[in-house]
Amino acid sequence: MTSPIVTLLTDFGVADTYVAQVKGVILGINPAVILVDLTHEVPPQSVAVAAFLVSSALHAFPDGTIHLAVVDPGVGTERRPLLLVTPTATLVGPDNGIFSYVLQETGNILISGSTDGIPLPLGVQGYHLTNADYWRQPVSRTFHARDIFGPVAAHLSLGVPPQTLGQPVERVWRMALPELVREGQRIQGCVIHTDRFGNLITNVPGAEVTRRSIEVHIAGRRIKGLSTAYAEGGVNLLALVGSHGLLEISVRDGSAAALLGMGTGEPVRVEFLPTQT
Amino acid sequence: MTSPIVTLLTDFGVADTYVAQVKGVILGINPAVILVDLTHEVPPQSVAVAAFLVSSALHAFPDGTIHLAVVDPGVGTERRPLLLVTPTATLVGPDNGIFSYVLQETGNILISGSTDGIPLPLGVQGYHLTNADYWRQPVSRTFHARDIFGPVAAHLSLGVPPQTLGQPVERVWRMALPELVREGQRIQGCVIHTDRFGNLITNVPGAEVTRRSIEVHIAGRRIKGLSTAYAEGGVNLLALVGSHGLLEISVRDGSAAALLGMGTGEPVRVEFLPTQT
Amino acid sequence: MTSPIVTLLTDFGVADTYVAQVKGVILGINPAVILVDLTHEVPPQSVAVAAFLVSSALHAFPDGTIHLAVVDPGVGTERRPLLLVTPTATLVGPDNGIFSYVLQETGNILISGSTDGIPLPLGVQGYHLTNADYWRQPVSRTFHARDIFGPVAAHLSLGVPPQTLGQPVERVWRMALPELVREGQRIQGCVIHTDRFGNLITNVPGAEVTRRSIEVHIAGRRIKGLSTAYAEGGVNLLALVGSHGLLEISVRDGSAAALLGMGTGEPVRVEFLPTQT
Repeated sequence: MTSPIVTLLTDFGVADTYVAQVKGVILGINPAVILVDLTHEVPPQSVAVAAFLVSSALHAFPDGTIHLAVVDPGVGTERRPLLLVTPTATLVGPDNGIFSYVLQETGNILISGSTDGIPLPLGVQGYHLTNADYWRQPVSRTFHARDIFGPVAAHLSLGVPPQTLGQPVERVWRMALPELVREGQRIQGCVIHTDRFGNLITNVPGAEVTRRSIEVHIAGRRIKGLSTAYAEGGVNLLALVGSHGLLEISVRDGSAAALLGMGTGEPVRVEFLPTQT
Repeated sequence: MTSPIVTLLTDFGVADTYVAQVKGVILGINPAVILVDLTHEVPPQSVAVAAFLVSSALHAFPDGTIHLAVVDPGVGTERRPLLLVTPTATLVGPDNGIFSYVLQETGNILISGSTDGIPLPLGVQGYHLTNADYWRQPVSRTFHARDIFGPVAAHLSLGVPPQTLGQPVERVWRMALPELVREGQRIQGCVIHTDRFGNLITNVPGAEVTRRSIEVHIAGRRIKGLSTAYAEGGVNLLALVGSHGLLEISVRDGSAAALLGMGTGEPVRVEFLPTQT
Repeated sequence: MTSPIVTLLTDFGVADTYVAQVKGVILGINPAVILVDLTHEVPPQSVAVAAFLVSSALHAFPDGTIHLAVVDPGVGTERRPLLLVTPTATLVGPDNGIFSYVLQETGNILISGSTDGIPLPLGVQGYHLTNADYWRQPVSRTFHARDIFGPVAAHLSLGVPPQTLGQPVERVWRMALPELVREGQRIQGCVIHTDRFGNLITNVPGAEVTRRSIEVHIAGRRIKGLSTAYAEGGVNLLALVGSHGLLEISVRDGSAAALLGMGTGEPVRVEFLPTQT
């Protein structure tokens, strides 16, 4: 039997020992676990950034990996600690929308602008973590990653079944994700993430823009056609399908975010050009 | 037998490869070790910050964990390389006060304002690391984490007994820790750590302020009563017992340090109010 | 059989999940691998900084360690994915000069100012990674660390022989490294790396300046003699042989880079003084 993998994503930063404390508690329960940091540099309390980043990494991990994601401004209040089991992954974190992108991918559910709870997609089981036998005691009011989520992830890695850890839930909280509007020969989307290189990652699926003749409009600029590598652009903006499988705006050896003076949230428009035959 | 855990805390940052070099040397001696970073973002040469952070993490790790803590402005001088064995942990680092908070917790020893060496608390053994057979050769004058402390931690993880690695010591160096003054119906303390969220962690033990009616005074502000979660405050300051078990000053979804324009070292005063009966 | 070690060096930063994705892919192929981060804070697209940092860490790892180094502005273009096998290490990364310092150390080859391909030093085998059977599919045009280099490193750690992964190459790309000029009683070199402490690491080998009477000239300042520890200097500049085995310019408890207002690239001159007999 191979060692289970547990990933960690938080907004704790790495200057304090909060992340290490979570790891220490997990290893105290299951020393055989393989710990991998997704990132701890989510801006403090930014559930939206966390939601994108969690989903960006999932597909690279083996089936069965346990993902701990804790950006949790409501820690200690009535928001529920949550466990989700999808066909390929196990997710542990607060029920505050942090798994919104993952659920969108998993279930192809329509996500409108509202922020009410949504039914779980087919094939996804949800549990409200209520069984304090599997928590670290005493439970701090401010550090559930160490005292609830970490211990639960560790017990899951040992094979404790989800239904032992909590009560089934039918609906979970989610945030309003930016919508994609398709009308005629255009798609309206927006930048949903700005990475450390200043690449602007949009919510336009790569599959919809390849093998077609397109123009991308962003921040008053127009980009003609798709590139296939960052190094193709001169000093100009380029559009390509990035490693997330999404349309991405970049600059060769530079930052598109800096060049355009903008970032996440900026609208983007793709125009499909008539094919000359 | 489970794999031994070795944690690492330094001021090396992660932009260079210094931390990786220490890990490479440790894994070369014992590839079965589990390495966990506490933090490497201690401000350069800040032994005081390191001392707080080491002690903040210890309680989350299983008994027997080996903690390597190296913030070492005196590297290459006459300061001693040190090994401490407490009832629950093994500590390796320079004898410059970096374990001051740990020793305070372990032994409940009175720490006054002086900075002379102190006798070790009951149940703690200390060793001056002198046996160069367990070091990496040649020993650099500037990088004992790689050449002395790392190898020693690795050999400890293999079961080499402490007394083989050095000579027993009776007294160790420590820094002057901020004192807590209790007088009548008040406690005078101060902020001893500012975390990445801007939470101000004080040296006032949580146990002394719970179940009582209190007011907290800091930076000209007054906070009435204790909160139980960060999300309880509006835009106001709140006081709560944080995950360190200490009184903490916070702001909901914001930074108390930024709001007050201050940080570590700031005095804090707790007033106990008469109970109305 | 001990677990193989795979180190990772990139310019991905840790705020995104790119590094984690590479790790997830590697662990999916070989969950027994031990992953160690060298650094991910190489400035974006700085192959020169990466080249120094890779070589700085290699000597600290056990023989046979696999080092993945990906700073890759040309990703998706015609630059070759490369595998190098030296007598002590296995190196995987783009053929863009990122292993220039390692090859210099391995082979003592003369590196002039040109940037053409160079023949591999004796004892080093090179392979152009061409066998897509060992890649992750589909291969993104922008993320070969995840889709080519990571999977190749993982398969190497499982024992797949290098010649299965690609075609032998005789010459590899390298960058022009800063030269050292020895003339009479002086050596002219320069600062090749500035670390997080502000220490200025030069390309002057420590072995050439010890046991001799020297003066170091840098940025209009003169430093007399070698120190043996950072704590020896007062507020003044000091010169010593640092942990890299190279001449280093430092300030006690401070930053030489900040004091002098300069960094990597700054010329340095060592003058050998007549021995008084």
